[in-house]
Amino acid sequence: MIARDLLYEGKAKKVFLTDRDDRYLIRYKDDATAFNGEKKGSIIGKGAINNTMSAYFFQLLQSEGVESHFVEQTSSTEMVVRRVEIIPLEVIVRNIAAGSMSARLGIAEGTQLARPVVEFSYKRDDLGDPLVNDDHILALGLADEEELAKLREMALRVNTILREYLSKAGITLVDFKLEFGRLDNGEILLADEISPDTCRFWDSETGEKMDKDRFRRDLGNIEEGYRKALKRVLGGGK
Amino acid sequence: MIARDLLYEGKAKKVFLTDRDDRYLIRYKDDATAFNGEKKGSIIGKGAINNTMSAYFFQLLQSEGVESHFVEQTSSTEMVVRRVEIIPLEVIVRNIAAGSMSARLGIAEGTQLARPVVEFSYKRDDLGDPLVNDDHILALGLADEEELAKLREMALRVNTILREYLSKAGITLVDFKLEFGRLDNGEILLADEISPDTCRFWDSETGEKMDKDRFRRDLGNIEEGYRKALKRVLGGGK
Repeated sequence: MIARDLLYEGKAKKVFLTDRDDRYLIRYKDDATAFNGEKKGSIIGKGAINNTMSAYFFQLLQSEGVESHFVEQTSSTEMVVRRVEIIPLEVIVRNIAAGSMSARLGIAEGTQLARPVVEFSYKRDDLGDPLVNDDHILALGLADEEELAKLREMALRVNTILREYLSKAGITLVDFKLEFGRLDNGEILLADEISPDTCRFWDSETGEKMDKDRFRRDLGNIEEGYRKALKRVLGGGK
Repeated sequence: MIARDLLYEGKAKKVFLTDRDDRYLIRYKDDATAFNGEKKGSIIGKGAINNTMSAYFFQLLQSEGVESHFVEQTSSTEMVVRRVEIIPLEVIVRNIAAGSMSARLGIAEGTQLARPVVEFSYKRDDLGDPLVNDDHILALGLADEEELAKLREMALRVNTILREYLSKAGITLVDFKLEFGRLDNGEILLADEISPDTCRFWDSETGEKMDKDRFRRDLGNIEEGYRKALKRVLGGGK
């Protein structure tokens, strides 16, 4: 696969066109941002960790029947993916209240939710990625009812698979954010990444955070947290 | 009905216990607040207008099969209602994008929505009445799935009835906020008020606002706007 023009540069990744019409190449960066870009920094080795973890999870999910854009990891910081049009929604699944949900709804961080909560945010940096409900999504034409049901179903399926896997690795999956894309034929695939940038991982015994909250909240040992999470994921609980 | 102790004083209404266990007396005030209490003022005659309009709409809705807490209007600013426990949700129905929806989602005010949008906000002044989705409502235990479906169905029914009625009175119903309550037996009734404080009313021809936006946005002629809306409602399009 030969990387061609840069198609898009995001906060944490670059997306390149390739010599194949139906493939992109994604290069993961060490750059880190938080609070809608207000806080900026760099986490050494993050690009490689997030790429490797995402590749691992996409393969795990694939083996459980969850289709994603992932094709193959081509270097420590790069993966080739199927070309999809990203649906401008962040699909968030929460098992335990934390972060923005705790702040918005006044639920103490760490509160176990009786069942998983799914949230959709409209991907619009200029609006601060506002929470939207189903009616908003339909009104904005971001997805139709069938797609919305599919997104929710896939997100909950990912939660079930990852939660169980991570539990064996001594990690509590607090919450995570997914993105999805459409193939030309309309089929919906899981896309983006699954990493400490997009998930909250807490040590099941100590509660230690192994995710981007170490950066957001200046908790120190950021790289160490990311490395620890990856090691546990690849170790698979062994 | 004899009003007894003040049970609760809100921004726009006082609620009194009465000599009957199953009744409250509501006294509508002229006080006006906006932006979660940051802006304060008074609109002369508002209490009487909102009480009279609410009484009128509750009776109209009753005649169309929508049960509410309304029993009778007992003075220009007072009504007797059935005693309900208010469900801490604001149920908002939108036909045209305006206000917070326009600001949050970047949809120009005045944009016609392809179909009505229903929103739920968690009534928590300290949190700024945040938007919540169905999963949040269930997680917070604010309503169960059956109640949620009932709230949505009743709110859309109210929209259909009021929209048609107001259209004949030359008023476009842009959006409105409802509250609901539970009787001891669990039955859900429409509660609170339906007035220029809780609805956006635009003149169907000129677009002139006849609602609380005149106060929120310092448009002047506030009392006149409220009076005009009431006159049209009572006139019923004649």
